[in-house]
Amino acid sequence: MSSQGQNTGRRPELRHDPVTNRWVIFSPARAKRPTDLKSKSPQNSNPNDNSSCPFCIGNEHECAPEIFRVPSDPSDPNWKLRVIENLYPALNRNLEGPCDEKQDMGVPGLAMGGFGFHDVVFKNHGASAGASMSHSHSQILALPIIPSSVSARFEGMNEYFEKTGKCSLCEVQAKELLIDESTHFISIVPFAATFPFEIWIIPRAHSSHFHEFDCEKMVDLGGLLKLMLRKMSLQLNNPPFNFMIQTSPLQVKESELFYAHWFLQIIPQLSVVGGFEIGTGCYINPVFPEDAAKVMREVNLP
Amino acid sequence: MSSQGQNTGRRPELRHDPVTNRWVIFSPARAKRPTDLKSKSPQNSNPNDNSSCPFCIGNEHECAPEIFRVPSDPSDPNWKLRVIENLYPALNRNLEGPCDEKQDMGVPGLAMGGFGFHDVVFKNHGASAGASMSHSHSQILALPIIPSSVSARFEGMNEYFEKTGKCSLCEVQAKELLIDESTHFISIVPFAATFPFEIWIIPRAHSSHFHEFDCEKMVDLGGLLKLMLRKMSLQLNNPPFNFMIQTSPLQVKESELFYAHWFLQIIPQLSVVGGFEIGTGCYINPVFPEDAAKVMREVNLP
Ligand SMILES: Nc1ncnc2c1ncn2[C@@H]1O[C@H](COP(=O)(O)OP(=O)(O)O[C@H]2O[C@H](CO)[C@@H](O)[C@H](O)[C@H]2O)[C@@H](O)[C@H]1O
Ligand SMILES: Nc1ncnc2c1ncn2[C@@H]1O[C@H](COP(=O)(O)OP(=O)(O)O[C@H]2O[C@H](CO)[C@@H](O)[C@H](O)[C@H]2O)[C@@H](O)[C@H]1O
Repeated sequence: MSSQGQNTGRRPELRHDPVTNRWVIFSPARAKRPTDLKSKSPQNSNPNDNSSCPFCIGNEHECAPEIFRVPSDPSDPNWKLRVIENLYPALNRNLEGPCDEKQDMGVPGLAMGGFGFHDVVFKNHGASAGASMSHSHSQILALPIIPSSVSARFEGMNEYFEKTGKCSLCEVQAKELLIDESTHFISIVPFAATFPFEIWIIPRAHSSHFHEFDCEKMVDLGGLLKLMLRKMSLQLNNPPFNFMIQTSPLQVKESELFYAHWFLQIIPQLSVVGGFEIGTGCYINPVFPEDAAKVMREVNLP
Repeated sequence: MSSQGQNTGRRPELRHDPVTNRWVIFSPARAKRPTDLKSKSPQNSNPNDNSSCPFCIGNEHECAPEIFRVPSDPSDPNWKLRVIENLYPALNRNLEGPCDEKQDMGVPGLAMGGFGFHDVVFKNHGASAGASMSHSHSQILALPIIPSSVSARFEGMNEYFEKTGKCSLCEVQAKELLIDESTHFISIVPFAATFPFEIWIIPRAHSSHFHEFDCEKMVDLGGLLKLMLRKMSLQLNNPPFNFMIQTSPLQVKESELFYAHWFLQIIPQLSVVGGFEIGTGCYINPVFPEDAAKVMREVNLP
């Protein structure tokens, strides 16, 4: 029994992607552990008791203040989409901008006021069913600092640009990593995917900021995103998932625009993050990206 | 209701610790969300069916090969501790060292063979009870690359050293962040703790590598670690937890030895990591470190 773990057809591999600027361990042997990579508990299995959903139409009074809605007429009860303030915001929009705070706790370190924005976006699901589905929604955060994954990404993309004169995401030709494509976007499993079945949707044309896109491209993106989510749901048993828009900081330097290329990242929650990952920032992924891409390419939608 | 989230006595704050080299958001408002910070499901609630535990005494034949045991006599059935190979290793000790692999998937990126070590450590829990407790154990991984958290830590500590001429962990005087101390160690909640009730145990004397410690210091460390785990268990309802030894790479440069200071990090699993954290590497912690330290300081052990 003791040799079982060693006798896998494929050898483990480490991969580094200039975009994430991190090493990931690909370990086929790990896939043999007594777990599998379908989601066990389908999403939203947790009924909301009898309380009604504050994000549903008709319950707007239970929410923090609205920022805007679509269509924009505030008296139209049949809104399609609302953006509201978060009732429990991580950052406070009312502080007077980021300012250094002095702290003397006898340890080295910096502190600043928690100025920033933390809003919630959700769409019309019809009248509240008071029911078993939790309302899908997204969060928008705006920070007074550049978080570590974003600066690591910028460093990695910069390094690649310095070496080759090219943008690392414009260079993606995909091949075995391709899942699908639309007029303006491609969807791939990234070369050094951090998580099993991670997906990136990348605009074909070089573009640093998500918000610069026009309406036609957004509709095109919506179509490809929906396709990916349907494939994922069908193949992986409707797993909980996160998607993140990996755009660029607003005040990016002119020179950074050459290699800053936004993308949308989708991560199904299939595996548990353990002490090794928390302690090192290095992830173990049991599924090779080219295998995940093949599976996703071949999902037949009904 | 909508102003509730804003009206907290304390303002949110961002903190940066040279050791982690990352910003963390401290958000008291988030603590008011409908969750609390005690563990809901006590650890090990998942019974092992009827199968016996491979890590228990008497079941050594179910394990991958042994590397060593304490006491070292291999014929003594009453071992206290065993270190064995992992049956499903993430990395393969039999590859011929790290070597570059050529990959042409039409995307930028590097790959190398997954050479490395992935072992399991566990202690004698008595004879297998075939029962409801999963056997506590640790993992040791040795990688052919320096993972991102470790390089970020070295950069942060280096920057602090360049600025002040001092090691950032030698400088910790603790004060409000102190939980407890022993002859050779202090335990604190770090200034910019990534997770609620995160604890660091830091050797008082400057030391770059965990494995350089002598037996007396290890026994002292064991005592303080046990005390912290008991306090955590009592205060936070026996939560699942990870602990990580944050030591230095073996082939560290001479000049790096001045600011490389190892510590042990304990993280109770109390909160869920969401899309924001996965996407940015920036964490939201609802509990200020000085509050967590006060709570932990004041836990009375029976
Ligand atoms: N008979 C046997 N002989 C020898 N070894 C045996 C064995 N039976 C099992 N093992 C090994 O023992 C280890 C037990 O470890 P854990 O249950 O703590 O977490 P695991 O490594 O599975 O994954 C968790 O930790 C890793 C690392 O943090 C994360 O990647 C992952 O997502 C998370 O679930 C496993 O690595 C397993 O391969
Ligand atoms: N009536 C109301 N009006 C306005 N806003 C309301 C509201 N009721 C609730 N909200 C807000 O709506 C959001 C719902 O978000 P989610 O349930 O996806 O995750 P949450 O932010 O709680 O935490 C998850 O995501 C964050 C960010 O990734 C992680 O920090 C955290 O650990 C993870 O559990 C919350 O931020 C909540 O504060």
